[in-house]
Amino acid sequence: MSATSSASAVSAEDAAAIRAILDRQGDAWNRHDMDAFVADTMPDVDWINVVGMHWKGHDTVRRAHAVLHTGMFAHSRLLPPEQSEMRQIAPNVVIETHINRLEGVGPRPDGRPYTNDGNLITMVFVKSREGWRIAHAHNGHIDKLAAAHDPAKNPS
Amino acid sequence: MSATSSASAVSAEDAAAIRAILDRQGDAWNRHDMDAFVADTMPDVDWINVVGMHWKGHDTVRRAHAVLHTGMFAHSRLLPPEQSEMRQIAPNVVIETHINRLEGVGPRPDGRPYTNDGNLITMVFVKSREGWRIAHAHNGHIDKLAAAHDPAKNPS
Repeated sequence: MSATSSASAVSAEDAAAIRAILDRQGDAWNRHDMDAFVADTMPDVDWINVVGMHWKGHDTVRRAHAVLHTGMFAHSRLLPPEQSEMRQIAPNVVIETHINRLEGVGPRPDGRPYTNDGNLITMVFVKSREGWRIAHAHNGHIDKLAAAHDPAKNPS
Repeated sequence: MSATSSASAVSAEDAAAIRAILDRQGDAWNRHDMDAFVADTMPDVDWINVVGMHWKGHDTVRRAHAVLHTGMFAHSRLLPPEQSEMRQIAPNVVIETHINRLEGVGPRPDGRPYTNDGNLITMVFVKSREGWRIAHAHNGHIDKLAAAHDPAKNPS
């Protein structure tokens, strides 16, 4: 069986299930409960954070976040996802992207301050027997200074 | 049909086909041929670059790259992918990650210099009737100063 060469629409039921996972993650972040934060990830989830750290597997993703929640994220709040978009690229596979913003972040582990204009994250969801699960996440800072020169918007 | 809750191994044939796409993209980049660079993308490919620009669709991805190849990338070289890893997360869907490095990059459109320690990119491939296609890419700078404090490696 081959997938089609274009993505198809995500059903309302699937979109709601995925949105519920994002909401549960936000709630878990704000309670600093990293067991709950990774509850909907696949065992071999890949997680790439905003500075290019590559965390592999459920336990590593949980532990890395837990360490940061004793430091820079200890008093942080994750705001609700903005501009969430979903594409079903194959049966049981949806790519979701959204902008995430944090408030109350402390200094980074290397001592530099944390300042940004929001992050754009890619999340790849797979529907398993147990429901939708996060297979992969890749987060990245949005560089507002660069954005003013987006070649897709300013082609000359 | 549901996918399993863990990824499975990528066949040698599929891995070779995906690697060939990466190699063709590198060759296209170094010839500054952006038609060739996007030849293996899906029509509705999503491409998120290292500064959080979100380019949607084959033509936008081609055009944005083409503009940058008249500027900062005009004399750049994309080196072969390093540390390529592939996971099959569902039938006909493979997530590939690798480190990419550029040489000879000029100043960015906003005037700031381009300096980095390589990028980590996520690419999501879907097997269509026409073969493997890039459905989604998310690229990000690797922050070496941050990496020295990776909580997954330095848990205390």
